[in-house]
Amino acid sequence: MKLVTAIIKPHQLDEVKEALEAFGIQGMTISEAHGYGRQRGHSEVYRGAEYTVDFVPKSRIEVLVDDMDSSSVVDVILKAAQTGRIGDGKIWVVPVEDVARVRTGERGVEAI
Amino acid sequence: MKLVTAIIKPHQLDEVKEALEAFGIQGMTISEAHGYGRQRGHSEVYRGAEYTVDFVPKSRIEVLVDDMDSSSVVDVILKAAQTGRIGDGKIWVVPVEDVARVRTGERGVEAI
Amino acid sequence: MKLVTAIIKPHQLDEVKEALEAFGIQGMTISEAHGYGRQRGHSEVYRGAEYTVDFVPKSRIEVLVDDMDSSSVVDVILKAAQTGRIGDGKIWVVPVEDVARVRTGERGVEAI
Ligand SMILES: Nc1ncnc2c1ncn2[C@@H]1O[C@H](COP(=O)(O)OP(=O)(O)OP(=O)(O)O)[C@@H](O)[C@H]1O
Ligand SMILES: Nc1ncnc2c1ncn2[C@@H]1O[C@H](COP(=O)(O)OP(=O)(O)OP(=O)(O)O)[C@@H](O)[C@H]1O
Ligand SMILES: Nc1ncnc2c1ncn2[C@@H]1O[C@H](COP(=O)(O)OP(=O)(O)OP(=O)(O)O)[C@@H](O)[C@H]1O
Ligand SMILES: [Mg+2]
Ligand SMILES: [Mg+2]
Ligand SMILES: [Mg+2]
Repeated sequence: MKLVTAIIKPHQLDEVKEALEAFGIQGMTISEAHGYGRQRGHSEVYRGAEYTVDFVPKSRIEVLVDDMDSSSVVDVILKAAQTGRIGDGKIWVVPVEDVARVRTGERGVEAI
Repeated sequence: MKLVTAIIKPHQLDEVKEALEAFGIQGMTISEAHGYGRQRGHSEVYRGAEYTVDFVPKSRIEVLVDDMDSSSVVDVILKAAQTGRIGDGKIWVVPVEDVARVRTGERGVEAI
Repeated sequence: MKLVTAIIKPHQLDEVKEALEAFGIQGMTISEAHGYGRQRGHSEVYRGAEYTVDFVPKSRIEVLVDDMDSSSVVDVILKAAQTGRIGDGKIWVVPVEDVARVRTGERGVEAI
């Protein structure tokens, strides 16, 4: 199992969510973050205003997936989050050793 | 070492915290998140009101543990977070290669 | 590749950010968290007031790095976050199997 984490532009969240659902993903976790990449956020535009501070608001998406879906899920997020402008986002994949579904107590792939 | 991450119902946070303390866990990190699982959040009840939007408020708990405690800590969280209703939560375990305690500069298991 | 996560005192964030930039780090993600360590937060001072609750406000920093930079980045954060007082912070390192840069579609180390 893998955990795919994506830091994207907040206004792309709906598009990413819909693309993940179309792919068959059944759950995800979202949180608010701030960040910057290679341009230190300086030239990023957020809600029509140029941000002069370093840290630009971002959405942080976490998706637990089966091993075989991991690379496709990165592709799905990549395509749905892309606007072609700087600050579009970063995605990373981390190995997961165990998953549990709290209500049922299931463990492993069945629990995702 | 492992990092156990749990996404639970916010009103179960105190119970999970107390269960982890009773187990002997000495530290944890909490943040706010939103998410949904297999029912897309539609039929989850939060604070007495049925949520019609997809994303339901959740608490995100992170606990660094020694290898040998990892599976027990998942069990402890699972039991304390369980209400029997949908949306009870998801827990996952990720391998950790190094830990540092900032004040003392300790590294490894001693630093947890 | 590795993901270095650090939970630090919020007022040390600027110092950590500058130290990471001086080291050559080009991007990072920040989010808000609450937490406690071995003293359960009881004797930590935050903004001049002693916190009587368990959970003290913390900044959560995530930095993707190349394998060879991982240990140095932990050292850089450790030094910049250290005030010598309890609650200074915790850092952990997790293996990363893939990274993608959304705008360009790059994958792997080039994408960091
Ligand atoms: N090395 C990194 N570690 C952790 N998070 C990062 C890193 N680089 C970028 N991020 C996160 O991803 C977000 C988007 O980064 P961004 O798209 O600007 O990357 P980039 O490499 O500068 O690409 P681009 O040139 O297209 O802007 C940042 O705001 C930050 O939250
Ligand atoms: N695949 C997933 N990836 C990332 N986070 C997830 C995933 N599935 C669920 N979550 C997170 O866990 C929270 C709780 O999920 P939930 O308990 O609804 O899972 P479930 O499998 O639908 O179980 P149940 O049928 O008991 O509701 C979600 O709100 C979301 O934040
Ligand atoms: N075991 C843990 N798992 C997850 N997060 C932790 C853990 N221990 C500490 N943290 C996070 O790191 C923050 C800082 O911890 P803290 O510096 O108090 O660690 P400590 O071991 O008690 O060291 P000190 O004795 O210097 O206070 C906490 O507020 C919490 O967010
Ligand atoms: Mg950038
Ligand atoms: Mg559900
Ligand atoms: Mg402490």
